[in-house]
Formats: sequence, C-alpha cells, structure tokens
Amino acid sequence: MKKERCHIKFLPEDKSVEVKSGTTILEAAHIAGVYINSACGGDHICGKCRVKIKKGHVNSPPTNLLSLSDIKSGYVLACQAQVTSDAVAEIPAEASPGQAKIVVDGKQPLYSRIEGMQSTEQLEKKLVFETSPLVRKIFLKLPQPDRQNNISDLERIYREIRKVDDIKIMQTGLKVIREIASLVRNSNWEITVTLGRRNGTTEVIQVEPGDTSSGNFGVAVDVGTTTVVASLVNLNTGEVLGAKGTYNKQISYGEDVISRIIYASEKTGLERLELAVVENINSLIESLASADNLKLSDITAVQCAGNTTMTHLLMGIMPDFIRRDPYVPAATCIPAIRAAEVGIRINPRGILSCVPGVASYVGGDVVAGVLASGMAESDELSLFIDMGTNGELVLGNREWFTCCACSAGPAFEGSGIKSGMRARNGAIEKIDIRKNLEPEFTVIGNVRPHGICGAGLLDLMGEMLARGIIDRAGQISRTSKNPRIRKGEAGFEYVLVWKKDSDGESDIAVTQSDIDNLIKAKAAIYAGAAIMLKRMNFSFDRVMHYYIGGAFGAHLDIEKAIRFGLLPDLKRDSFLYLGNSSLTGARQCLLSQEAREKVHRFARMMTSFELSIEPGYMEEYVAAFFLPHTDLTKFPTVKAESGAGVTG
Amino acid sequence: MKKERCHIKFLPEDKSVEVKSGTTILEAAHIAGVYINSACGGDHICGKCRVKIKKGHVNSPPTNLLSLSDIKSGYVLACQAQVTSDAVAEIPAEASPGQAKIVVDGKQPLYSRIEGMQSTEQLEKKLVFETSPLVRKIFLKLPQPDRQNNISDLERIYREIRKVDDIKIMQTGLKVIREIASLVRNSNWEITVTLGRRNGTTEVIQVEPGDTSSGNFGVAVDVGTTTVVASLVNLNTGEVLGAKGTYNKQISYGEDVISRIIYASEKTGLERLELAVVENINSLIESLASADNLKLSDITAVQCAGNTTMTHLLMGIMPDFIRRDPYVPAATCIPAIRAAEVGIRINPRGILSCVPGVASYVGGDVVAGVLASGMAESDELSLFIDMGTNGELVLGNREWFTCCACSAGPAFEGSGIKSGMRARNGAIEKIDIRKNLEPEFTVIGNVRPHGICGAGLLDLMGEMLARGIIDRAGQISRTSKNPRIRKGEAGFEYVLVWKKDSDGESDIAVTQSDIDNLIKAKAAIYAGAAIMLKRMNFSFDRVMHYYIGGAFGAHLDIEKAIRFGLLPDLKRDSFLYLGNSSLTGARQCLLSQEAREKVHRFARMMTSFELSIEPGYMEEYVAAFFLPHTDLTKFPTVKAESGAGVTG
Repeated sequence: MKKERCHIKFLPEDKSVEVKSGTTILEAAHIAGVYINSACGGDHICGKCRVKIKKGHVNSPPTNLLSLSDIKSGYVLACQAQVTSDAVAEIPAEASPGQAKIVVDGKQPLYSRIEGMQSTEQLEKKLVFETSPLVRKIFLKLPQPDRQNNISDLERIYREIRKVDDIKIMQTGLKVIREIASLVRNSNWEITVTLGRRNGTTEVIQVEPGDTSSGNFGVAVDVGTTTVVASLVNLNTGEVLGAKGTYNKQISYGEDVISRIIYASEKTGLERLELAVVENINSLIESLASADNLKLSDITAVQCAGNTTMTHLLMGIMPDFIRRDPYVPAATCIPAIRAAEVGIRINPRGILSCVPGVASYVGGDVVAGVLASGMAESDELSLFIDMGTNGELVLGNREWFTCCACSAGPAFEGSGIKSGMRARNGAIEKIDIRKNLEPEFTVIGNVRPHGICGAGLLDLMGEMLARGIIDRAGQISRTSKNPRIRKGEAGFEYVLVWKKDSDGESDIAVTQSDIDNLIKAKAAIYAGAAIMLKRMNFSFDRVMHYYIGGAFGAHLDIEKAIRFGLLPDLKRDSFLYLGNSSLTGARQCLLSQEAREKVHRFARMMTSFELSIEPGYMEEYVAAFFLPHTDLTKFPTVKAESGAGVTG
Repeated sequence: MKKERCHIKFLPEDKSVEVKSGTTILEAAHIAGVYINSACGGDHICGKCRVKIKKGHVNSPPTNLLSLSDIKSGYVLACQAQVTSDAVAEIPAEASPGQAKIVVDGKQPLYSRIEGMQSTEQLEKKLVFETSPLVRKIFLKLPQPDRQNNISDLERIYREIRKVDDIKIMQTGLKVIREIASLVRNSNWEITVTLGRRNGTTEVIQVEPGDTSSGNFGVAVDVGTTTVVASLVNLNTGEVLGAKGTYNKQISYGEDVISRIIYASEKTGLERLELAVVENINSLIESLASADNLKLSDITAVQCAGNTTMTHLLMGIMPDFIRRDPYVPAATCIPAIRAAEVGIRINPRGILSCVPGVASYVGGDVVAGVLASGMAESDELSLFIDMGTNGELVLGNREWFTCCACSAGPAFEGSGIKSGMRARNGAIEKIDIRKNLEPEFTVIGNVRPHGICGAGLLDLMGEMLARGIIDRAGQISRTSKNPRIRKGEAGFEYVLVWKKDSDGESDIAVTQSDIDNLIKAKAAIYAGAAIMLKRMNFSFDRVMHYYIGGAFGAHLDIEKAIRFGLLPDLKRDSFLYLGNSSLTGARQCLLSQEAREKVHRFARMMTSFELSIEPGYMEEYVAAFFLPHTDLTKFPTVKAESGAGVTG
C-alpha cells in the first residue's frame, strides 16, 4: 500500500528523513543533507547517482544508464526513483563525495619537482616575498598617557603601530573602538592588535589584552569545482601546519560549473550551493584546527582561489550570466569581506579574501597559478596550463599575458570515465603493461584498486599505445585474442583489474568511449595552446617554460603526457609540474602583500580571448585526435620510437 | 491610602506611565520617555527639574531650591518628589527641552556678517571648495557587453565611474555586488551609482536602476551639549533646503558633559544617552525631509560635528576617561560608518561621518569652527573663540594651531542664570536701559518675554554698567531707590520685566549671583586667551582676526562684549561673529572633499594644552573679574567713555 509519508534512511551516513510519497531519492537526500554525486544535476543523463535500495520499494523507470548487473543488485538512479514506502538507500562510495581522502600537496614545498627540472634556485628566488600576511598580529606596550601626552586611546594605538610599520590609511570599526578604552586600561597598556589588509586599507580588526601575537593562523583554500583543498598556515612564520581536501559538496547539485549555474537559478538553489561550499570550508578548517589544537578564534584569515563560478557561489552571487553569451560575470575582483559574512567560522572579525579572476572562464584559480609559477618574473616566454575540471591556458612573460579557457572537460579528474576517479585512496596512479598485456600498477594508499585517477589514465594511454592495445587513432584493437580485450556492454574495452582483485563489484576497465573522451580532452588543450601561440605569432619551441597545474595528484609523468599528445614534444626540462598551483598561489597571497598586489596586477594584465571562435581552432582540434598527433613531425622523439603492434 | 502602583500623567505632552509607589517623578518621566531638564543629573543641586503637581499627591522633602511662591503653586523637584498616588505633573516650559524653536542659522549664508567687518570677498574666497559631497550620485549609461568586451558587470561600472572621476581605491559591499547582474540588465544598462567617501576610499554604496541622481541629499548636524541643530542640503547643488534645531534630549540626564559622562557609566546609561541624541537627529531629519517632501532614502549622508563627549555618546562609545585625569578620550577621529549602525534613519546604506576632534575638551565642533572661520587659509594670526556650552580657544594661522578649553560654563547659553534661556521664542535678545533705569528690549518671535538669552545677557551687562546699576566689580548698587533694584530672596537683583508683562509667573530679574556667573564665564575666556597668547609670546593686538562662534543666536554685539570685558578692546573690524560655526563647518565637510581633508589635517595640527595648570592663569582669571578688567589700560576705548553713576 502506498504511504502518504515515507521514512528514508541513507547509508553509510545513517541519516534519515521523512518525505512525501513520490519524492525522488535525490530530493530526499538533499532534504536530509546527504550528498549524492549527480553530475548532470538530476537530469537523468550522467548515471552517477546510482544508489542501492537495501529495504523498501521505490518506483524506478527503465534506464540504460544502469547495467543489468546493477539493476539485479538493486541499484536505481536517485534522480529518477520515487519513494513509495519507507526505505533504506545505500550510497556507493563512488557516488558519495563524503569524507574521502583527497591527495593534497598543501604541505609540500611550493614546487613539486620532477626529474630534470630547470634550476631549482632560480625558481625559489621567484618565491621570496616579504612576510606580510593578510592578517597580522602585533604586540604593543603602549606608553601610558599623562597630561603632556593625552592623545586618544585609538590614536595612541595607531601611533605605536606606525612605529612598527608606516601604514598610511588605517581604520577601525565601531565595535573595536567601543571596547578599547577599558581594554587598554585593564590590560595595563599591553595589548595585541590584529591588523587586516582590506581593499587598499589596513583595518584594526581586533584588540586583545596582553600578548596573543603567537596565535595567528590563516587558511589557504583552493575552491575547486570537484575538490576543495585547504592548508593551515602559521601567519607569523609561513609554516604549513597541515592540509586537507574533500569533495565539493556542490557535486550533488551538478558535476560541472554549467549544471551548478543552472541549479543556482532555481528557487533556493544559490543558497544551497553557497551553504554546501561554506560547509566544506568549515569542516576542513575545523578538522585542520583540531589536529593542531588551535582555537577557531586564532584563525584570522581565509584566502581562497577558485574559478569565477566557484567564487560567485561562495560569495552568494548569482552566476547566471556566466553561462550566457557574451559570458559576463557579475564581478571578477570581489573585495575582501569578513569571513563571518558568508558563514565561515573563524575569528568573528577574521577576513575572507578571494584571488581576483579575469573573466567568466579564467578565474582566480588560474591567476593564483600564474603567481605560483613565477612566470611573470621572467622576460622569457612561458605557457601555463591549468588542468582542473576544465583547462585554462596562460601565455606570457613579465610584460604581457594572454589567456583562454579550453572545453577540455573533467576527464583528467576521472569524470566521464567509466572507471575514473580522483586521486585518492584506491586510485590506480602508475601503470606498466607487460608484453602479454598483463598490467602492473601502484594504487594510492596501497589498498585494493577502486578506479583510475588522472595520472593513471595518462599512463594507461601511453602504455596501451606502446603495446598496440590502441592504435594512433585511439581505436581498441578488435583483432586481439587476449582476454583483457573484450567487447563489453558499451563496446570494446581493456580490463585493467578483474573484479576479484578490485574492491568493487565489477571489473575495472577502460572503454572505447573513455578513450575518446580522454583524447578529446587532450586535443582541446593541445589545440588551444597551438592556436594561442599562432595568434601571438609564436611556435611551441619559442616557449621556454611550460608550467602545468592541476588535478593529477602528486605526480605527472611528463614523458607519457607527451607521448599521449597532451604536451608538445620539447626538451623535457622545459616542463614543470606545479601540482595544485591554485592552492600554492592562495597560500602566497595569504602570506604576502606583494603577492596580493601581484595577483591584482596580473588579473588586470591578462587579456582573455574566446578560443572557440578563433579561426582554425576546429582544424587544430581535429588534427590532435591522433596519438600523439595527426602530424607526427610535430612529435619527433615519439615518432622515433613508435611502431609497436599488439603482441600479447 | 498609599497605592502599590501609581499612574502618572505628564503634561503638556499628555504621556502616561504606571510606576511603583516611591518612584521619583524624574524616574517616572524617564520611563515614560518624557524629558525633564535636570541639569545636575538628579542630584538635588540645580533646581532645574521643577514640575507642578496638578492632581494627586507626592512625597516631597523640604528644599531651598524652590521659592516660597513656587511651593505654594504646587511645584516640586522632580528628582526628589516620590509618587504615592496617581498624579498629573505639568512640566513648565523652562524644564522641557521639548519642541521649542531654536534659532538656527543653518539657512543663512556661511558667514553671518556684522557691521564694519573685514573684506567680504576675502572671506568668501576662503570658502570656495570644489563640490565633492560626502556621498554623490552619478548616472551612467553603461556600454553593453559583447564578446570583445565582456569584463564583469562590476568592472564595467568601475570603468564608467573612472571616466567621470579618476578614483583610485574603489570598493563595493557584497550586498550591492549580489544585486548588480540582474539590476543592470533589467534597467537596460542605465543605472545610478551612489558613491560614498569613507576613510580614504570610495565605496559604491548603492546601485539603482535608471536616473535617480537628482535625489541626493545630506544633513549637516551640530551635535551640541545643549542643542542639536541640523540643516538639510542638496548634495548636487550645495543649496540649503532648511534648518531646524531642538534641545538635546540628553539634557534630562544631566546639563553638562561631566554629568552626562557620569550618567553614561551607570547601567544602561550609555545606551539611553545614545538613543536620546539619535532620536533628536532622527526627528530633525524627518521634519526637514517632510517639509521638502523628500523620501528618507534620498538622504544618503549625515555629517556631524560635536564636542568629544557628544561624539562618543552618539557613537555609543563609553566616554568615562574623558573626565578622569589625564583626560584621554577613546577616539578623536572616528571612521565614517553606515548611519544605520547607530540607528539614524536615512538611506539604509547612507553614511555617517563626524568631524574629527583634537582632545577630550577640544572636539570636532571646534575643528569645524576653525574650518568655517577660514583662519587656516591666512598667514596672519587669528584667534577663534568658540562659546558653546563651554568655551574653547584656537590660536594660529596657515602654519600652526594651538588650542585649549576654558571652564567658562554655559552661562552664555542662559544656564546657571535664574532668568536665562536659550535664544528661542520669548528670549530677550537686545536691551537698552534708559537713564531712569526703565529698559527697552526686543524679544525673539515678538511674543511676551520669558527670559534672557546669551546675547541679551551681554547687552544687559553693558547697559547695567553704563547706567551704574552695577559697578566695575559687578556689584549691584545697594543705595539706589529705584524700584527695579531690590533685595530679592537670594540677594540684590535688577528687575528687567515685571511679572504682569512677562509670560511667566514671576518677574524676570537678573540677580547678583547671575552677574557673578557671567563675570566668571567672561573672565575664564578672557584669561584663557591672554594666557594662550602669552604662552606663544604674543599680545592681543598681534592677532589680526578674532572669530567668534557660539550660542548667542543670530547676533552678537561686539561693542557690548568688549565693554563687558569678554573680548579685548581692539579695532572693531578685527572681530567676526560666525554664528553656529560648528554647523557651518559640518556643512562644508558634507559638501567638499577638500574640507574633509582639511579638518583631518587641522585636527592633527592643533596642539592642545591644559589651561588650568599654566603658570599665571589664576592671576589672569581673577584680574578679569572687573568690568571690563582690573587693568583699565587694557581697554582704552572703554576707559575713555566710562564713569557714569546711578542716575535713575
């Protein structure tokens, strides 16, 4: 019998909710505050929101987004299945963006180096900023007033601050002024002032009795479309105390920026998206602070870097026009505010600042990456390739920058790839394929494999090509007798891990469709770079430094990226993998006034252009569909060693 | 029979309250929100809080602060009388700070001139500030975005603003940024931005659709200890649309700054004082706005000038240490805030700014007066004398300023003077005494006289001396047979108006005690000026310009002020009476960035010293107890015409 109200329990979080009969599982999850990965935003397209009904009945229409074995095991799509009775739904690991461990490099040195890199010292030099954190604390012993020196308490404080640093425009909110008279007297004229830099002025954001100057911490946050990664920094020393990452809870409202923008336009959508990412940041901060036994009130600054849509959503700004021609954001440079204004729980008067962006599809994360790369410090030409959920390119040097976004999609983050996953525990990250087509691989966290991350996918492409599993067009061999090459439900595939060796309920395989997606992604980036260079009348070899930032995790195998045709075939020491350059740049802004001034200058300098309407783009794109490229002369070292067929 | 709860009605306001038996009338009035003048703050000292019990019984102890006729008529002191039954209490006009009409000069030209003044043109020149109001509105037709020009909406707005004015640091609050994307599109890219100048930066405080630039008004307020006076200004044209004044409602908690500071330290005292003056300002603004049919939301700025204690109280800052040695205020320069932050009802994002002060007893009202005088524009030496509730002196020129406060007391505002009153309707302001000692006088508002205002008291002193009613020591003649000179309840007095000709219930007379108070006040100012000059090695005649600001109302008779010994005996065209110079200065700050920068510069330039501990001050003070002075050679023109005895 159909019930009016149904009680739905979600596992493994063990959260329950009562909803009207007919409500979808996805809606019920939203109401319960349980996050289910629904990449397409609930439009029955992506098939990512599969959940297993362990108890009770749901009304689930037929779909080709679930395999037969899934359906037999009780899986339904959360966006389609309507509850008709009390039920228990289990969210499988891949649909839960929950507490998975993200590989973060926040604790690593500012550069993650790989073999054969350009001079380390040269790069370190670029990173020497004076220490002038976004918020700093200064301990002051105020001279006591007498009749000859009876200036106001506030002016007395200003005067002592100016002895330490000649600050021109200084201001203080009424709340602080109201406290100071009794505070300075009760603390025997020994106080600690907290100074925040905001929008060209310095604000006394807090006055505390005694010497509390040692308790001054900040958090740098990379607000990514897929992951949110934070590092906790001692603002007095610059030391990184810890770093943590989590999936962006907004994923349950849509996997990419476009579906989030659409969701934001719905009733309460913007609010929910803002809340989701703020919850992400709060839980990262809480967990980082508790690991170091810090009070939240000792955290005085949060410096975020994110793409333009993420920044809008964090600030509660409707991003609607970002997706509409001519792609105009509401704001690219958002003034620093009190973190509490958006609900971030640090010191109630602490500051939240976002790295400024350039345009709708070139955001503060890219500007932060440009800062982290140090490319603006050199007269030599550099190309920065940011491979996050999308791909962005910046070309330039000390004098100028041009930039654009590529429609690369999130394939290198494992999205749109059947067995793809982000670089976290259980992800295969390094692969060798032997002649008999048996693979050897390493798994992050040394656990049973669950899927393949971006770096693993790159490895896999290179190995499959080398072993003839795929040809230069990316086509899986249809003639092999090897059992690892088979025709699956959705065409030919190569099985990397048999079900019995995996931690899941199916084989880990890469399909023809996966390969096509990866090729399209690499082609978009390669073609984008080629067109960008052409537009400025340069060739690939005129670029002295290639900086790569992105979601590959800790490592990127440059050799394999070239063999796949993602990167041009140049001297290997032209390339430097920066890791999470957005986080690195945010950390620099947290620590240095010079860095903050630089990102504002860069954001103004960077001229953005629309790649898709550039003449010749389509031709370049299609020409890059081959591995490494249609025109092998562009990849001389790859050409020299190519030619192996299927041997297994 | 004694009641538990008593119902008390206050006339003429017709407000009622129920209080516990035993509550004083003054407390009951506070609870009812009815204001009774209680100069001493309820300490049974001043006798100002007399009220007439029209019905019911109160428990009132004996007091010598009420005359026998008062007691017979049913008067009690509100601070002493405890209610024991339901009662009706009438607050006489002099104890009610209510809706009395204050003479304001806000609508007059920036200078109120008197005969024989220095070059008018020269002074006008000093006042030519460029028009750059505290808040301004600019109508913008934004160029519509296309793919070649798709900068963010906010940057597009900034860019157009910068075409009008090259503003360096510009910021915008999140609230405004959240609105702009839909707003600019719904208004066909025609918008009006409201720009506020705050603490060295320019803030976009509001964006409205269409052209609303004509609706931009501001209010200048002189927040005096005794009166609060406001003028409404069109911020586009500088035109003054109206001006109104009222008594400071704080008077019911104490007449002078010291008693208010003491009251502020009591439980909820600070809150009540803040609320009282904010209510003053709100009611003035509402009344000014409704007279011109303006919406409150079209008022975008309030510029106040007040002494340091008034500024603290308006901002809700505890002023406690102002009255404690070494007299340190919490802040003299308070950053501009949103007016709504203290409850001032204008545009919710409108700005409140206060003219910065110098020290505990040299406040923003004095700095505003220095600005209004134009004395900083000249190389010649000037002395500014601000006679408000207290007296302040500023000596200097373009290069330097020194300043101090005199303990002159509020005698020239009519306070501490039996028949004294402020310059409002019913106040005698000009007096001639004929040979037979019969007076002729003019009354403000052409009504029956009620008391004598500051300018009237000055006139009276000069005339009484000229007619021999008082001698050079200020002693009333004890030998005259004239019926107007008599021994009253509190010593000798001169009767200016007989009860039958007045609007009150007693004769209007000036007593020996009144004369002594006025002499002490003028002696404090004269001695202060003399010591200040001596300290800087100047004599009175080295000062080229004497500027007088203060509470005398529309006019000050310089001749009589000199004869009384308040001002030095110099060429009459050295003197310029500025009227309410605090309001004039506030108005200039409302309208001009140059003026705002100047007051900050002046406040920093002005070095304040403590008069009472200066060597020789006491001697100078006592020497000035004579009329005009002990040393008649200092007043040659007065000496030449003096010598008349009592002739009536």
